[in-house]
Amino acid sequence: MEYRVRVEISLKSGHSDPEGETTKKALFELKYPVKAVNVSKVYNIRLEATSLKDAKGKVEEICRRLLANPVKDNYEFEIEEVK
Amino acid sequence: MEYRVRVEISLKSGHSDPEGETTKKALFELKYPVKAVNVSKVYNIRLEATSLKDAKGKVEEICRRLLANPVKDNYEFEIEEVK
Repeated sequence: MEYRVRVEISLKSGHSDPEGETTKKALFELKYPVKAVNVSKVYNIRLEATSLKDAKGKVEEICRRLLANPVKDNYEFEIEEVK
Repeated sequence: MEYRVRVEISLKSGHSDPEGETTKKALFELKYPVKAVNVSKVYNIRLEATSLKDAKGKVEEICRRLLANPVKDNYEFEIEEVK
């Protein structure tokens, strides 16, 4: 079966977010009253798996092995079956 | 008032997504049965505005002026008031 997976990788609190900081500065210079900007990344993945449980296991592994850096990143994901 | 804004920037269909392609290849080499990967970016913004309508107008402008490239990017956003 095929699954549509959405993984969001965000920085753990306390880690610097230079892209967010630069974006905040740029918006501030354009006179927008912005107080904070944080950037995160979304991976939309089409994955084959035998069941929802199998898909969850694979996505956990993928996040830990490849997509998220355990020192600085949090990850969360949603999975839905493709009909 | 203060608003929490979540802007998601994704590629328009037909535009190449080298980061997604590279991620797909890396996952495939790790033996994950991945059929497609697309990457998008999320900006979490704290913004001051006088009303929800004012906040929406500012966010539209921010997306068009700074965050999204009209040639290749789609954007969508959600806004909620910070209590």
